[in-house]
Amino acid sequence: MTNGVRDNDKNDDNEGEPSALLIRHPSLQKVVLDTSLFVNPDVRTSLGRTPTEALETFLFLAAQIHILEFYMPPSVFEELMHFAERERIPGDLLVVLHQKPPKKHELRCPAVLLYELIEEMRERVNKGLRVAENAVRSAEKKKPDEIIQDLRRKYREALREGIIDSKEDVDLLLLAMELDALLITADQGLIKWAEKLGIQWLFPEKFKDYLAGAIRRSDFLAALPKEE
Amino acid sequence: MTNGVRDNDKNDDNEGEPSALLIRHPSLQKVVLDTSLFVNPDVRTSLGRTPTEALETFLFLAAQIHILEFYMPPSVFEELMHFAERERIPGDLLVVLHQKPPKKHELRCPAVLLYELIEEMRERVNKGLRVAENAVRSAEKKKPDEIIQDLRRKYREALREGIIDSKEDVDLLLLAMELDALLITADQGLIKWAEKLGIQWLFPEKFKDYLAGAIRRSDFLAALPKEE
Repeated sequence: MTNGVRDNDKNDDNEGEPSALLIRHPSLQKVVLDTSLFVNPDVRTSLGRTPTEALETFLFLAAQIHILEFYMPPSVFEELMHFAERERIPGDLLVVLHQKPPKKHELRCPAVLLYELIEEMRERVNKGLRVAENAVRSAEKKKPDEIIQDLRRKYREALREGIIDSKEDVDLLLLAMELDALLITADQGLIKWAEKLGIQWLFPEKFKDYLAGAIRRSDFLAALPKEE
Repeated sequence: MTNGVRDNDKNDDNEGEPSALLIRHPSLQKVVLDTSLFVNPDVRTSLGRTPTEALETFLFLAAQIHILEFYMPPSVFEELMHFAERERIPGDLLVVLHQKPPKKHELRCPAVLLYELIEEMRERVNKGLRVAENAVRSAEKKKPDEIIQDLRRKYREALREGIIDSKEDVDLLLLAMELDALLITADQGLIKWAEKLGIQWLFPEKFKDYLAGAIRRSDFLAALPKEE
């Protein structure tokens, strides 16, 4: 088989005849995936009805792609496993989806981002106080438990949505930075920070289309006559 | 006068005979000052009863020091001017205390600090929610205005104290980093971050003693016989 697909993971040691794929793709495109692609119902639906189904579909598609390498930080993978049925996840996932933490002690980021992070948090904190004040003012009309439930929801919305606010978020950004990878996430806070850091990102609802495109491209490259 | 003090600012152009001070101090120690030294009553008292008095004392002492260079970011200087009587501040201050912003678009900081900043904020945000919940629960016993006043104080304490939370804070840290300077501040959040970033810092209550020590050292060096 001279024109066939060569699997990089099974790259043989035939030195005189290097793999056709390796020649045409000296560096594969690396892709960093967030849990939101499999968990967030708005984004997930094209892949499956449940997170587990979505993961299975992803695996089925990813196995046919030879031009991309998929990564996920272990912290994010662990998060994903909370949503999926562990026993139904095939071991192949561990091969197809590389679990790699970022080299957090080697990477450096532009200091100017500290200003943006802190200004953003400052605005959020002020917003949170206004939410709390409104809750106190509504205490005359409603029951405390009702107010507190409402307060929690509004407070989280004010302080957490649309910003990076967890170790997992930082892991995703730094890993994408380190690998010069494409970040795919449905989290608006992460997308905003990918923009700041010059990280490639993809509209999350296009994830399945992107995989389908990568399969076609893999097939096309595999069918090319082998170079001399 | 061959053994006398040479003022660096008045460094003459006598090329054959370089200044004794310049030879012994090829790089002066740079010091970055925070407003808290002049404004925070706990720290200020050794310098004066009011911020203006404290600034005047600082100026009097700093004028006798030839081994240190004092810096303050413009944003922090502006903050300081809100507390001082502008018309009583002598123009000398502008010469003795260099106003320099950090090169924020050139500096880079270790990415690992993003985790610490975000984890710290996350804890604070949770604390803020608990403060808000307690305020709602106390609504049966107290008047709304009273509760809200109390809420504001506790919320600010929970979310702001002991962390870096403003543009001015970041300016101070980055300027000290850029100049490899000693940072003097009474702000615990800044001291914590100076530790993380490897920035030299001084117990703020020792500020006056430090200035007195620097005067003695300046006098001692000025009295040394001039090198051949």
